[in-house]
Amino acid sequence: MIVSGIMAQALTPTEDPAWLLRETGYELLRESTFETRFAISNGFLGVRGGLATHLGACRTILPRTYVAGLFDTPTPDSTVPELVPAADWLQVRILLPDGPMMRCPNRSSRALTLDMHRGILFTEARQSCNAPLDVYLRTLRLVSLDARAVGMQLIELQIENGVSDLTLEASFGPTDFELAPERAEPDLRAWRTWRSSRSLAIAAAASLHVDGVERAPTARGDLMWSWSWTASPGQVVSFQRIIAVTRHHSVDVHSGARARRELAAARALGWRGVIDRHEAAWAERWRSSDVQVEGDAAAQAALRYAIFHLNGAVNPADPQVSVAARALTGDDYRGHVFWDTEIFLLPFYTLTWPEAARTLLLYRYRTLDAARAKAAAMGWRGALYAWESADTGAEVTPAQTVGPDRKILDILCGSQEQHISADVAYAVWQYWQATSDEAFFCQAGAEIILETARFWASRAELEADGARHIRGVIGPDEYHESVDDNAYTNVMAQWNIERGLETASLLRERWPGIWNDLSERLGLDEVELKQWREAAETIAIGFDPETSLFEQFTGFSALEKIDLAAYAGRSVPMDVVLGRERTQRTQVIKQADVVALLALLPEIFPDAAGEKNFDYYEPRCGHGSSLSRALHGLAAARLGRPETALRYFRQAAAIDLADTHVAIGGGVHIAALGGVWLTAVFGFAGLSLRPDGLAFAPQLPEAWCKLEFRVHWQARQLRVTIDRTAQSLRVVLEKGSAMAIYIGEERYLAPAGEALALSLVHIRIQKIHGTPPFSPL
Amino acid sequence: MIVSGIMAQALTPTEDPAWLLRETGYELLRESTFETRFAISNGFLGVRGGLATHLGACRTILPRTYVAGLFDTPTPDSTVPELVPAADWLQVRILLPDGPMMRCPNRSSRALTLDMHRGILFTEARQSCNAPLDVYLRTLRLVSLDARAVGMQLIELQIENGVSDLTLEASFGPTDFELAPERAEPDLRAWRTWRSSRSLAIAAAASLHVDGVERAPTARGDLMWSWSWTASPGQVVSFQRIIAVTRHHSVDVHSGARARRELAAARALGWRGVIDRHEAAWAERWRSSDVQVEGDAAAQAALRYAIFHLNGAVNPADPQVSVAARALTGDDYRGHVFWDTEIFLLPFYTLTWPEAARTLLLYRYRTLDAARAKAAAMGWRGALYAWESADTGAEVTPAQTVGPDRKILDILCGSQEQHISADVAYAVWQYWQATSDEAFFCQAGAEIILETARFWASRAELEADGARHIRGVIGPDEYHESVDDNAYTNVMAQWNIERGLETASLLRERWPGIWNDLSERLGLDEVELKQWREAAETIAIGFDPETSLFEQFTGFSALEKIDLAAYAGRSVPMDVVLGRERTQRTQVIKQADVVALLALLPEIFPDAAGEKNFDYYEPRCGHGSSLSRALHGLAAARLGRPETALRYFRQAAAIDLADTHVAIGGGVHIAALGGVWLTAVFGFAGLSLRPDGLAFAPQLPEAWCKLEFRVHWQARQLRVTIDRTAQSLRVVLEKGSAMAIYIGEERYLAPAGEALALSLVHIRIQKIHGTPPFSPL
Repeated sequence: MIVSGIMAQALTPTEDPAWLLRETGYELLRESTFETRFAISNGFLGVRGGLATHLGACRTILPRTYVAGLFDTPTPDSTVPELVPAADWLQVRILLPDGPMMRCPNRSSRALTLDMHRGILFTEARQSCNAPLDVYLRTLRLVSLDARAVGMQLIELQIENGVSDLTLEASFGPTDFELAPERAEPDLRAWRTWRSSRSLAIAAAASLHVDGVERAPTARGDLMWSWSWTASPGQVVSFQRIIAVTRHHSVDVHSGARARRELAAARALGWRGVIDRHEAAWAERWRSSDVQVEGDAAAQAALRYAIFHLNGAVNPADPQVSVAARALTGDDYRGHVFWDTEIFLLPFYTLTWPEAARTLLLYRYRTLDAARAKAAAMGWRGALYAWESADTGAEVTPAQTVGPDRKILDILCGSQEQHISADVAYAVWQYWQATSDEAFFCQAGAEIILETARFWASRAELEADGARHIRGVIGPDEYHESVDDNAYTNVMAQWNIERGLETASLLRERWPGIWNDLSERLGLDEVELKQWREAAETIAIGFDPETSLFEQFTGFSALEKIDLAAYAGRSVPMDVVLGRERTQRTQVIKQADVVALLALLPEIFPDAAGEKNFDYYEPRCGHGSSLSRALHGLAAARLGRPETALRYFRQAAAIDLADTHVAIGGGVHIAALGGVWLTAVFGFAGLSLRPDGLAFAPQLPEAWCKLEFRVHWQARQLRVTIDRTAQSLRVVLEKGSAMAIYIGEERYLAPAGEALALSLVHIRIQKIHGTPPFSPL
Repeated sequence: MIVSGIMAQALTPTEDPAWLLRETGYELLRESTFETRFAISNGFLGVRGGLATHLGACRTILPRTYVAGLFDTPTPDSTVPELVPAADWLQVRILLPDGPMMRCPNRSSRALTLDMHRGILFTEARQSCNAPLDVYLRTLRLVSLDARAVGMQLIELQIENGVSDLTLEASFGPTDFELAPERAEPDLRAWRTWRSSRSLAIAAAASLHVDGVERAPTARGDLMWSWSWTASPGQVVSFQRIIAVTRHHSVDVHSGARARRELAAARALGWRGVIDRHEAAWAERWRSSDVQVEGDAAAQAALRYAIFHLNGAVNPADPQVSVAARALTGDDYRGHVFWDTEIFLLPFYTLTWPEAARTLLLYRYRTLDAARAKAAAMGWRGALYAWESADTGAEVTPAQTVGPDRKILDILCGSQEQHISADVAYAVWQYWQATSDEAFFCQAGAEIILETARFWASRAELEADGARHIRGVIGPDEYHESVDDNAYTNVMAQWNIERGLETASLLRERWPGIWNDLSERLGLDEVELKQWREAAETIAIGFDPETSLFEQFTGFSALEKIDLAAYAGRSVPMDVVLGRERTQRTQVIKQADVVALLALLPEIFPDAAGEKNFDYYEPRCGHGSSLSRALHGLAAARLGRPETALRYFRQAAAIDLADTHVAIGGGVHIAALGGVWLTAVFGFAGLSLRPDGLAFAPQLPEAWCKLEFRVHWQARQLRVTIDRTAQSLRVVLEKGSAMAIYIGEERYLAPAGEALALSLVHIRIQKIHGTPPFSPL
């Protein structure tokens, strides 16, 4: 029997399957995977793809809604804040006279459909186990990209067969163990965190229609509604719930007022209006950031999925928060922010959504004092950012963790993984180069660059050999701790100091007033700048001109070499196979380290040094981090090895999308998703920034006939199309004034509002050596 | 300030530190370890050693009280029942005007003391973080070994400094997600499971005294009490709560009545009376089962800890349940029962607590129909026990699990790990040999042995080579699946069929009426018995007379040999290091397999075959199971290698007691604890059963000056003392008539009520070869 309710259209996903991710069936052990994979987020609220209706007791799966920035420590003893989940606002029970309606093994159907175009998760189920009824259930959930406080749930229940008394009960899950209750009223509940003085309010409204006619609730409690009636064949039941969530950074008696206002605004739009505005916001995001690949449906799907999560991870209106290692999709890493944001995510935002990039960098500006305090506490000057950062910017890396063998391990990253400071500076500089956002640069960015440069100049100590050394650090390769002169760290430090000097010159020249104020406030004088210059010149970077190799750190080349091919069958990372102690004595690398340098600063690798370093380090890498493969892909593409790059691209995409593992229960690997986009745009299209425009060095793999995407550059918007079959590159400058486009070293002018079509046939793409992509303006 | 309240004596642990396990301080990551290690249990109720007072929000640690036999499936889709935790009945909050009193990092002290002699967990804390008060808090908790439905909690709060309004609130933790609430009254709550039709009731009473004067509760709810008063220095606050828990195997409206009766009985005794009876019951258990070691304090502590948990794991009054792989101390393995019970635990119960052994074997008798159904469903005759068994005896091994690499793995044990049937028969026979419990044998044991023998006779199929083969099984070494002719399985099968034939002869001879009834009921005739005889004679057991080696299974010796020494640094089991597929192609063994055979049936290893097999298989064993080391220790001691045995003994003891790992959060490894006792009594003392008495073959390690223990044998009780220094063995027959004691093959008579002292100096201890310890009566 096909019936059609008032919500029929809203409950129908986009037609084009290329925009959909779909999963049917139900498998308990994979459920946490699906909850992550089908998570939706708007950068303020994140909702995992848990089941839409309550199944009776089910202690394996906890539904999760995250509120960005709602941190608290889990116990009074802990110094490590964690993102506290909010009440589950999707809770619905369908009650029969004998108890809750239950899913039925083998007989109940279930489907999840993530509509990436519309930013909506749909579910569908037939539940007919213990029911005297046959019902067909469709649900929709969204967190609005238009009004980020707002979440909405629609449920349509079609009674296909049977007659029975029925109750639909909508309530909120418990949070009292996590949050202390403050207010409970029929339309509002408010909580505060136990220790961090944050508060949370949720206002909600719900209604139910049977065959288009609204029914009054039979029972009503605090954020609880229930409706009872006699169900009969052909009935269509339409349920809607709209919520508004607010977070406050103090225990605020008025917290409920704002949630109520947000709710009132959403209710004024009605559920159709909420959907319309949300979809319009998503359409705008897709217009700016979609990447299209022809010839490789899997790559297309991977890119869509990556871009969907990247757009959902950030809230450009909230500089209080940044993007966590698992975004707002899971418990792993407790909502903490790592270098992942600056190195793996910022390029996407900078080039497709500068407002979002700016907000993320303002989070680092807001936490600059905490970075200064960390450096000072460790005896250095300037700013050393927290390796793991939560709401205040204080270092919140746990001191210990439980290893895969359930042994307690000390975590040294919080004190030793210092490259984070250069990574933040790198993202600031890249944003500045790509946007020319003077207000940001003068008010925030320059200060970050100067303070991180100052940190490195004080950190690299002059020793008897006449060189400056950075001892006792951890590089990106975390298998090796307390190492000296990690190439990635030292080269990035050198680069950071150079950008500090460049920033100083630039400010002095173009904005002398700002320079005077800032240098006075920072106590930065000529003597110190001279010392920076000297530090940048004398810092040991471990490059051997004879072999063209960077040594990853002092003594690396003398370590035991392990043939990783012999461990191909392993099911766990190499440090677990060999044990932590032994791994430290080998050349096994956790993740791209010198290769990361090649991905970020290709210009510092002279001649064939890029190839040489890649060929040396790639076989030594165990890829024990989800960050590793994308950077290998990016570097390989840049080196003119698109098929190798494609292999890494697929492996990076598989982390969250392949079904062979269930490792993603703790949330999507947002950095790997950022890396998927990076490999496509910075790798295969070979994009790099120039002072007067953008350069491209296309290296499409065989399977990719065509690659098309949009980027922003200095208040312009370009559509870039690379056609492998036609051997052409086409740039349409859709917004903004004329700019330069480089293919290799050939310079072309892209005129405003017009298309620039270039043939790639006779152009020898020069591999990127010695060409600073970020040269001074 | 030292004050002394009415509970002072009760709250003071036993003086002798050899009876105490103590932990001070608080370390979040180790908390789950302590919760397991300090668990207490009486075989019906199990309570983990969670914190006694609520800390505010704390989402890492869930307190757990288990009720034996309270199984339910976690979701409607699941076919795997799990032990459902009951409400946390220890919940207490101490509320100050500003909120709950909280522990303070670095400033609050905390100590846990497990008094194994008294069967009580004590905690001690000074909490002075956010309080205007200095308080000293002592708590006691027990689950009564005298009345197993009863739990009791005492708290004494001494106000050392400060004046403040104070509230002590005692309540019950939520269970509503796990269990459906049925009744809630001030003194009683009742729940039912969502799907399995079990019910649970808890009745409780609580009271509070300030300076010895009882106060009426200021507020009262369902199983909730709170008292408010103004605390001032010198006050001693005494809180007591007694609970009574009942489980019903149906949804029973009267379930509360029994809980109320049990509670009333406990209240009539008063808290002192409850403690007295509980301690008397423990004293009786220790009198029967304590093992004393002189010269090795660590071994003494390990044995005490093992015996404490073994005595707490079983309820001789309840044949509805058996001992789970983690007893009642943790979530791992969901409360399921494995071969662990019969092979690792039963010897302890059989020899120190025959009533408990009998009950555990009656659980197998109760589930014999389910074992018959499993065999029939797979196309065989007789009884094939469930590899994992819960309340009904149906096979409940999960079909899949998530591996250490978070890959979903198929679990084949539920269909292939069939040796369980022979293991059950082994335990029945051992019990029968040790107790001569005719009633049990005739009414239950014989039928188990006959039906399992019948299974093997139908399972081992005659093939063209004239031998019977058992194909497609998993032995104890679970790294190798779908193997043919696993030596452990086939030899145990052969032994089981032989015991079946022996049982048939015995019944026919001694209890012809019973034989007639039983053989008729089972349809067991001469033709079938002849077929059994032929099956036992022709079954392939893989023994090569040339090398004296059993081949673990057909083709094992041709597999790749791995040098395990090269993987000494590994932090995870070998199947994780090599990957599951590769491990299957190597000789790496998960756990004692042929060595298990050597431990269980030493008499089938002719001449030096024991040594040869041990020396061949030991270096191939990765010890990927907690069961492995104890059996290696037992076998090594029997082979006259006490120092090797001691190494394994210590490693087995370290599983739950060493602090290097935190692997025990999921519960104590009760089989390894059983193995610790086994290694001492069956290994170092060399105990074995003879038709007319007990044999000993002492092999004490250097460090053990003296070993003393008690055992039951056929309605007698013996105290056995082995003195290494004096080279003597002393047996005191404390109860029962004269019996034989063997040293090697020398036979002595232990007279009733007297001591038999034997010198070991001139007795050559014959290693146990070819001497059936279980010869026919």
